[in-house]
Amino acid sequence: MNEAAITLDGWYVLHDFRSIDWVAWKMLDEDERRAAVEEFTAFLNKINKTDEAKTGAHALYTIVGQKADFMLMILRETMDELQEIETEFNKLTLAAFTVPTYSYVSVVELSNYLAGKSDEDPYQNPHVRARLYPELPRSQYVCFYPMDKRREGNDNWYMLGMDDRRAMMASHGKIGRGYAGKVKQIISGSIGFDDYEWGVTLFSDDVLQFKKLVYEMRFDEVSARFGEFGSFYVGTLLDADKFTKMLEV
Amino acid sequence: MNEAAITLDGWYVLHDFRSIDWVAWKMLDEDERRAAVEEFTAFLNKINKTDEAKTGAHALYTIVGQKADFMLMILRETMDELQEIETEFNKLTLAAFTVPTYSYVSVVELSNYLAGKSDEDPYQNPHVRARLYPELPRSQYVCFYPMDKRREGNDNWYMLGMDDRRAMMASHGKIGRGYAGKVKQIISGSIGFDDYEWGVTLFSDDVLQFKKLVYEMRFDEVSARFGEFGSFYVGTLLDADKFTKMLEV
Amino acid sequence: MNEAAITLDGWYVLHDFRSIDWVAWKMLDEDERRAAVEEFTAFLNKINKTDEAKTGAHALYTIVGQKADFMLMILRETMDELQEIETEFNKLTLAAFTVPTYSYVSVVELSNYLAGKSDEDPYQNPHVRARLYPELPRSQYVCFYPMDKRREGNDNWYMLGMDDRRAMMASHGKIGRGYAGKVKQIISGSIGFDDYEWGVTLFSDDVLQFKKLVYEMRFDEVSARFGEFGSFYVGTLLDADKFTKMLEV
Amino acid sequence: MNEAAITLDGWYVLHDFRSIDWVAWKMLDEDERRAAVEEFTAFLNKINKTDEAKTGAHALYTIVGQKADFMLMILRETMDELQEIETEFNKLTLAAFTVPTYSYVSVVELSNYLAGKSDEDPYQNPHVRARLYPELPRSQYVCFYPMDKRREGNDNWYMLGMDDRRAMMASHGKIGRGYAGKVKQIISGSIGFDDYEWGVTLFSDDVLQFKKLVYEMRFDEVSARFGEFGSFYVGTLLDADKFTKMLEV
Amino acid sequence: MNEAAITLDGWYVLHDFRSIDWVAWKMLDEDERRAAVEEFTAFLNKINKTDEAKTGAHALYTIVGQKADFMLMILRETMDELQEIETEFNKLTLAAFTVPTYSYVSVVELSNYLAGKSDEDPYQNPHVRARLYPELPRSQYVCFYPMDKRREGNDNWYMLGMDDRRAMMASHGKIGRGYAGKVKQIISGSIGFDDYEWGVTLFSDDVLQFKKLVYEMRFDEVSARFGEFGSFYVGTLLDADKFTKMLEV
Repeated sequence: MNEAAITLDGWYVLHDFRSIDWVAWKMLDEDERRAAVEEFTAFLNKINKTDEAKTGAHALYTIVGQKADFMLMILRETMDELQEIETEFNKLTLAAFTVPTYSYVSVVELSNYLAGKSDEDPYQNPHVRARLYPELPRSQYVCFYPMDKRREGNDNWYMLGMDDRRAMMASHGKIGRGYAGKVKQIISGSIGFDDYEWGVTLFSDDVLQFKKLVYEMRFDEVSARFGEFGSFYVGTLLDADKFTKMLEV
Repeated sequence: MNEAAITLDGWYVLHDFRSIDWVAWKMLDEDERRAAVEEFTAFLNKINKTDEAKTGAHALYTIVGQKADFMLMILRETMDELQEIETEFNKLTLAAFTVPTYSYVSVVELSNYLAGKSDEDPYQNPHVRARLYPELPRSQYVCFYPMDKRREGNDNWYMLGMDDRRAMMASHGKIGRGYAGKVKQIISGSIGFDDYEWGVTLFSDDVLQFKKLVYEMRFDEVSARFGEFGSFYVGTLLDADKFTKMLEV
Repeated sequence: MNEAAITLDGWYVLHDFRSIDWVAWKMLDEDERRAAVEEFTAFLNKINKTDEAKTGAHALYTIVGQKADFMLMILRETMDELQEIETEFNKLTLAAFTVPTYSYVSVVELSNYLAGKSDEDPYQNPHVRARLYPELPRSQYVCFYPMDKRREGNDNWYMLGMDDRRAMMASHGKIGRGYAGKVKQIISGSIGFDDYEWGVTLFSDDVLQFKKLVYEMRFDEVSARFGEFGSFYVGTLLDADKFTKMLEV
Repeated sequence: MNEAAITLDGWYVLHDFRSIDWVAWKMLDEDERRAAVEEFTAFLNKINKTDEAKTGAHALYTIVGQKADFMLMILRETMDELQEIETEFNKLTLAAFTVPTYSYVSVVELSNYLAGKSDEDPYQNPHVRARLYPELPRSQYVCFYPMDKRREGNDNWYMLGMDDRRAMMASHGKIGRGYAGKVKQIISGSIGFDDYEWGVTLFSDDVLQFKKLVYEMRFDEVSARFGEFGSFYVGTLLDADKFTKMLEV
Repeated sequence: MNEAAITLDGWYVLHDFRSIDWVAWKMLDEDERRAAVEEFTAFLNKINKTDEAKTGAHALYTIVGQKADFMLMILRETMDELQEIETEFNKLTLAAFTVPTYSYVSVVELSNYLAGKSDEDPYQNPHVRARLYPELPRSQYVCFYPMDKRREGNDNWYMLGMDDRRAMMASHGKIGRGYAGKVKQIISGSIGFDDYEWGVTLFSDDVLQFKKLVYEMRFDEVSARFGEFGSFYVGTLLDADKFTKMLEV
């Protein structure tokens, strides 16, 4: 057997994409709509308390195009909490005016490809903790996509030796570091949890950096030969006020 | 012709995934909802009698994310019983407030890859019986996915000789045994019954073990070169009380 | 050009899979439901007359899992009759409470791979006629799946010479004969009629034989290298009485 | 660059497949149904005037199985006319009782693979004109399928030289000519217009000839190595009277 | 790592495809329909002001066949404006009578494959600006399709060296230039934004030129070996008057 990669695992993540059923929403009278928005705002305030307590995090963004109207990304210490928040959301009045279009279940992950040797417990390292239990930036744009490492004929990532994989991941990481300060990246592992092997969530104040980063990486062997990509979702920052305004009809 | 694997076959299995139609559910008045929940609880109590009689088993879990809201897994001695339970479920009041999202039909299976030689009837062996007719643990988490063995170009599992297949399965089994006590695994065969060749159901009290197990196996040749995976479903334990609470609106 | 296989063609076949809309069905009052069932029973009796006249045949089975609730398989002398029965079914009251989930159009087929040389007209041979115009057994279980012969890279069935194809089909047939008395098999060709090249319908009183047969064949070169399979459907025998009972709510 | 094939292009073609919503249709009262059928019959009479003027053509067929209930195939001198007829159809009362299930946009095409050298303008050649602007036969059966030429690894049609492609197309044409008088074939090109590269529409009074023709061709290298096929649709002839009868409930 | 292509990026683009719900639309009374059309016309006039100010552009076309009834293509300086226009459209009365069928998010792009060396800032070059911030022609026909460059086995675009890619793109560009004056082409990049890597939008007054151009290019190595194509959409020009007329029932 080949040497398996070892991961460090942080918060569990649920990406929940929804479209708005505008026809039904407009049929409500104004009081009902206001009550639904207030209930949802209270829900957002409540989940935001976890951000403040640094025991979890969330992000709320529009999605451009027909794939969804908005995405709520939730990070929590346990899978159980994700389930509870999902159920709580589904019981909100507003949820009845949304249509689920996609979701993704994963856990924030760091692999050992680029790790140095150390005797310390990485889970006690503040730099590692900051990545496993990340504060989410309130950047203007988000990009999400799931991905696999290919296993086809001569392009089989999992049949490569650890050294080959480590060298390719190092090259990949170097490109990523070229975008430091411009793009913040959260990698979450989903093997055993969802249909692809990883979810990638990018945050930036310059939406074009998403395209530049993903395009540049595509010429790198690890993506060129081994990357299999799912759907890409891109959107703009929402908060309670912007969400309320978006729902005004 | 290549030497075919021989299987031992136990209970028939139906995995039934459903989403809850919250909009319609909330439209019921409280008495109707209570009656629907009581009827469903009685149904659960009835199928649980089979667990107690050890002539079958069942598991009930939430599913995290939009693929489903819950999964009912049923094991029975005959395919006919699965059909009857499915029809009985469909006639419940609660079923009218669910949307079928996925199902899987299979039979608990042991292959002869790892079997020793013996003159005894394996169906009389208590260790074998415990695996073919398994009691399902009430672990906090479940993971389900269907899978195939690949038949593509040079990666064609079914063109390999028995010895090659047996050696690879032995390596695979070794990884699995490393998770003994942490993950309980039920393999059910679905060739001729459903779209993939096997269903894999994992139970654990630590959800991260699902990811660790599946990821570690992916570097093993039998998965790396020959594994083709369907959708992954992960969820948390339900019982009549938790289910009742989930349905409170 | 490669030597094409020649076929003998018998009755045209329509497999019609439907789910029951239980919510709408339960909304009918009991008299309406009884009338709908009686109308459907009369329809079954009418198509059964063709079975008795041996100018066609039919089978009615449940389907286990969410792919469908039942399947009606119809064999007739002409494609036109299939179209007429389909339209007649669609106009029944019961049809309004079903949702079409899959269908398959084909014609019962025998290939010349295993045929001996003969001067006689095979369409006059009683053994051939019994296979082209088959009486359908009232076995307890049915299995249906569509399939193709692969045309990919070095695994291109249609680029093989006739002798290679014949040798592989002979090996395949030998496995099939090992299930004589246990599984009855109807092969129907659908090139030019539907999305796969063949439909396979299996009948047995022991549902496990479907799995054993299909699994054993998968190790045979013709399946291992050249078989591409669609969805598998498995179910249990229905007749007018069982169907009536299934519909009782 | 490889030598590209040159085409002659005739009438634009829209294949429009629809299912009938029998539940809604039966809810109309008889007068409304009669008015809807009369309006549709008038629409058919109007488009038939173009057939008579030989400035276009149309065909109306049932489709057997669940893929559709009927197909309307329209040929016109301009893409604009196809758009107008589609919109006109959508505004008919009957259209409200149909569900669109598939459509195909293409243009009748002849390639230069089999053309001889000539100084004359082929668009003035009566034999060419009869194929580019075809009268559609009122045969009892129709078959439609879209297809691509494969571009995969060593089986890349578009990387072959013109001579290789011409030789293979000649072999293909020879098979086709063996069905002269039995099957009429319309090839329409859809590169740039729809998802496959060609649409193939076959007409015959013997539905089995579709299967024989497509199966025989599949052993020919151009199909065996290079043919990629979409869904197959088969059906029986309709006219205003048969359509009216089909809609009687 | 391989040398990555560098791009110039212009306006952000949203292609929004919709079908009309004719049944619901016809249920409105004439006054309501007129009001909805007037509101939509005002919306079109408003977005057209951006065309006049040359700070964006738009195009409105029918789509032939069932994939959609019309497409609105919007180009703007920021992703945020696309999101706002999409939301504004969704709140229109007319939107409630449309069904979203497809959308595409991208940014107008020029690659450096064909660029000469220069010290000047290309974003100040008027020829470059005319392509990055294009006025859209009011041609009679439009064609849209998304595409990828293949990464499979020996046909992996992203593993080719810059010189090989540049030579192939030059051959491709030469074909394109042969259609100058006949077809106007807008290439927009969507890596990181949507599911394919590029969107291609073609405009012409002769719809057949789309087919000729795409077919001729398919024999060119860059398409033959490396082009992976999504769905093709073709349609005819709409303006407020034509749209109003199309909606008359």
